[in-house]
Amino acid sequence: MARSFSPAPSDRVRVRRAPARADYDRATIDAILDEALVAHLGFAVDGQPYVIPTLHARVGDEVYIHGSTASRMVRTTGAGVGCCLTATLIDGLVLARSAFNHSMNYRSAVVLGEARLVEGDDERMAALEAFTERLIPGRWSECRPPSRQELKGTQILALHLDESSAKVRDGGPNDEPEDYTLDHWAGVLPLRLVPGELEPDTKLRPGIPVPESVIDWTAARRP
Amino acid sequence: MARSFSPAPSDRVRVRRAPARADYDRATIDAILDEALVAHLGFAVDGQPYVIPTLHARVGDEVYIHGSTASRMVRTTGAGVGCCLTATLIDGLVLARSAFNHSMNYRSAVVLGEARLVEGDDERMAALEAFTERLIPGRWSECRPPSRQELKGTQILALHLDESSAKVRDGGPNDEPEDYTLDHWAGVLPLRLVPGELEPDTKLRPGIPVPESVIDWTAARRP
Repeated sequence: MARSFSPAPSDRVRVRRAPARADYDRATIDAILDEALVAHLGFAVDGQPYVIPTLHARVGDEVYIHGSTASRMVRTTGAGVGCCLTATLIDGLVLARSAFNHSMNYRSAVVLGEARLVEGDDERMAALEAFTERLIPGRWSECRPPSRQELKGTQILALHLDESSAKVRDGGPNDEPEDYTLDHWAGVLPLRLVPGELEPDTKLRPGIPVPESVIDWTAARRP
Repeated sequence: MARSFSPAPSDRVRVRRAPARADYDRATIDAILDEALVAHLGFAVDGQPYVIPTLHARVGDEVYIHGSTASRMVRTTGAGVGCCLTATLIDGLVLARSAFNHSMNYRSAVVLGEARLVEGDDERMAALEAFTERLIPGRWSECRPPSRQELKGTQILALHLDESSAKVRDGGPNDEPEDYTLDHWAGVLPLRLVPGELEPDTKLRPGIPVPESVIDWTAARRP
């Protein structure tokens, strides 16, 4: 597969542990950010780091996050201080012959930087569309768009991907050479986030069918 | 259900946004930490926050994390600076009639504090057992225990749960009163981390059966 050009990683975003698992390719980073339904945003207040789960939406070379204008997370990261957004996908448990070599198959993306406050109403509305569409493509046209009031109460921030990296662990266990003669079972237990049965809202008006977008999204992720 | 006594949350761990979703009950916090296979650890280096996915294991009133003695994450958080460990479980997509009220059902736990460096060999070995057992209960007795060398190369840290909180969003969409007359479908799409087909190691010696622990863990999580 052709790999797009990626610049050398900055020193602070360079993966330190297990560098063989590092990937600075934007295609890898983008795919992880786009698949992960939740990211974790890190920021510090008075020297104390906080890590808060948040919805994110990548558009081109930036990742949007958003929140109420009253949110500490949004106020802090919007004030031009360094933050870190990390998205992690769990792909499986790696069961080795030794306790020490037990591991996890995962894909994670880390984005460092200072967030840009998104200010123009057009870009702000486009970002809200991206938040909805990244959950379920097609959903934006199936629901009421944000009102002026809703838009006004939302702060949107953008984090550039120029300082980003990915880390990927896949494959089977890596045991010590002498452990392969042991009688212990070893292998991978794959894990995947899978949709269950749809739960229509109890107040749903009769006769409203499940939209195609939801049917398609669910079908694509069934085991 | 009886709720155990929980002290009032410290100001800095108190949930700010959507305080109705906050839960300071240790049973809730423990259950989230115990179910989550990965946590995100936040720490700052030269004022820049980093958020790194990591395996964690709760034992009583503390959460263990570990890493190589060469790991920046472990060296930084072991130096007595503030850190934040957050574990998040995704329970479903909440599809509302309005774009703005789209949400996620989730459970998250946040632990703040300064990590304690675990030093005694007995506790260090017990912590490694906890890391293995929290993945798959019973697995510790089915694999080779850590050697003196492996133990020596591992740094283990403990974070006390006295400054911790949980946040839980569940149930259906909360739409604006006037939106309930709209023709848009609304409901919840539940999501769950589900095991796939076991992948035995390609170098597995013939005649080694899949252990009961793995069969049980998988069966309990099948859709």
